[in-house]
Amino acid sequence: MKAQRAHFAEPLQLRSGAALSGYDLVYETYGCLNAAKSNAILVCHALSGHHHVAGHTADDPDNIGWWDNIIGPGRPLDTDKFFIVGVNNPGGCHGSTGPATVNPATGKPWGSDFPLMAVVDWVHAQARLADLLGIDAWAAVIGGSLGGMQALRWAITYPQRVRHALVIAAAPKLSAQNIGFNDVARQAILTDPDFHDGHYYDHGVTPWRGLRLARMLGHITYLSDHGMAAKFGRELRGGNVKFGYGVEFEIESYLRHQGDKFAGYFDANTYLLMTKALDYFDPARETNGNLAAALAVAKAKFLVVAFSTDWRFAPARSREIVDALLRNGQPVCYAESKASFGHDSFLMVDDYFHGVVRAYLANVSR
Amino acid sequence: MKAQRAHFAEPLQLRSGAALSGYDLVYETYGCLNAAKSNAILVCHALSGHHHVAGHTADDPDNIGWWDNIIGPGRPLDTDKFFIVGVNNPGGCHGSTGPATVNPATGKPWGSDFPLMAVVDWVHAQARLADLLGIDAWAAVIGGSLGGMQALRWAITYPQRVRHALVIAAAPKLSAQNIGFNDVARQAILTDPDFHDGHYYDHGVTPWRGLRLARMLGHITYLSDHGMAAKFGRELRGGNVKFGYGVEFEIESYLRHQGDKFAGYFDANTYLLMTKALDYFDPARETNGNLAAALAVAKAKFLVVAFSTDWRFAPARSREIVDALLRNGQPVCYAESKASFGHDSFLMVDDYFHGVVRAYLANVSR
Repeated sequence: MKAQRAHFAEPLQLRSGAALSGYDLVYETYGCLNAAKSNAILVCHALSGHHHVAGHTADDPDNIGWWDNIIGPGRPLDTDKFFIVGVNNPGGCHGSTGPATVNPATGKPWGSDFPLMAVVDWVHAQARLADLLGIDAWAAVIGGSLGGMQALRWAITYPQRVRHALVIAAAPKLSAQNIGFNDVARQAILTDPDFHDGHYYDHGVTPWRGLRLARMLGHITYLSDHGMAAKFGRELRGGNVKFGYGVEFEIESYLRHQGDKFAGYFDANTYLLMTKALDYFDPARETNGNLAAALAVAKAKFLVVAFSTDWRFAPARSREIVDALLRNGQPVCYAESKASFGHDSFLMVDDYFHGVVRAYLANVSR
Repeated sequence: MKAQRAHFAEPLQLRSGAALSGYDLVYETYGCLNAAKSNAILVCHALSGHHHVAGHTADDPDNIGWWDNIIGPGRPLDTDKFFIVGVNNPGGCHGSTGPATVNPATGKPWGSDFPLMAVVDWVHAQARLADLLGIDAWAAVIGGSLGGMQALRWAITYPQRVRHALVIAAAPKLSAQNIGFNDVARQAILTDPDFHDGHYYDHGVTPWRGLRLARMLGHITYLSDHGMAAKFGRELRGGNVKFGYGVEFEIESYLRHQGDKFAGYFDANTYLLMTKALDYFDPARETNGNLAAALAVAKAKFLVVAFSTDWRFAPARSREIVDALLRNGQPVCYAESKASFGHDSFLMVDDYFHGVVRAYLANVSR
């Protein structure tokens, strides 16, 4: 796989009132777009994801796409049948225009001058990519977590352009607890002395401490209590308590390793921006909190999937979406997997979840 | 109320193998010790608690004890009937010898040279205070959360010296998730540039950023998702999204305020030490993971109380203790309150919980 790059010269008007002047999107495609351009599926990424959803990159056989287990020839998102598009959202840090890219107005990285974005802004940007690719309507838009929110937003904002919305491990809006976790993560970054008001690029440093903490915390919320217990229990590194602050329990080793790794490659401003887009997401806000009213304009058919061990976006949150659709008499399938990996289950090989997606897409016309 | 101070000259041998040379304990007492010295109740504090459990301090009418709602004349822990003792554990930061007090060997604050402690070490220290007060056996030892673990440990370590153990909102050991949250909090403090390897006192600074983050995170785990939703929902400060990193949602305001306040008065080394004592607590470790075997030596009667909205130490964790006691045929009462405040419920006015404690103590002989 080799990423492609598209430049969009027309400014993107944002929900915040700001506008993003000309911007680049980096994307990858898999499979072949048919003559009718009716077999395209858009894969939307979550907080730390990107355009590289499947296969390996041309330069690195070990750089496997983050959703490779579900996308490929013969896989549930079958690249023999569908034309799959993965895109890095604006504001991201994997090639598309974002806080770490150069602001043409200053010749320096945008940093915290990069405008904050809402999910709907990404959907507009993705729609322009669809225009470029000649895709009038997606056969399906699919995503997990924040990606599922984009699928939901697509169905509301561009009802004519999405035939199926696959909303996985998502929620119609964040709870106070969800926002609380996001704010702790943000405060970790914002109070890191190396944050420099978001212009750390100019100082040759990164707020790695804050980003590392944010990721450690994130990983706790991505896993289930039971899943963690099964994977790590209270196992001691080296078999003994050491009465010190080094790694003592396996779970500490896991979280610190994940935090270190992430802080080494991810951009802190992007992390901040992504968590804010999560917090702001609430399509029912425009209809006085009535989610059914917000969804009424959608023409898509829906598949909603939740995971019973997911406590970040518990199944009850997915069922809010299902209930709203049912209230409108809109077509929706709902499935709940018992996979034990918590919120992360949507990224794992889960035969039940994969089977549901496979069966659903088998009935999607191309 | 006026705190008293006791000095203990004999070194305290610790579970880590280290010893704490002479140390001070600060404590408060409420009510009158009867002639038989049989009406004494020890109140054990949790992570951020201390000896000042009820009433107000002599110098400040607004400085109300942290468990004042349950302790006092006519209250469930009735000071007209019982002699209540609150003590700040060694390692604490409210007057007892701890990391912020002066190490006689160096003439400087102990800092990170203060030995890490286990729950059993606190119990030994408390037993010496009982000796000093002439109390052979407590009528009851009570505590919530980490305090409940001390009550449990008392019953195992000094079976002859505790007649009733009241274990509130506790667990027989931490889960991997619990340890994970603690480690994120610790890493926030340990990586704060102002931590200076735990000797920040010498630099005239405190690792307030890390301590603030630790407390913000703690508060999320102290409240229930539902309780947070009821209290804060997704209410916006000022009614509008501002597309910036200031306070936007009420929950952010609450968490940051709690974090700021805490970072202003609590000692970071104590916070680290307390979280480690939590992680290490596991009395069944000594009996190959068999909790019933660990508890078999206890002579106390037990009251175990859990709160259905507590997800930090969920009721299932309390029931592990109850089940182990029942397996041994040991006397135990169990109650589960539906209070909506999550783990914090034990600190709140909850008629059900208070009624249970009142009824239980009514049958405790004095």
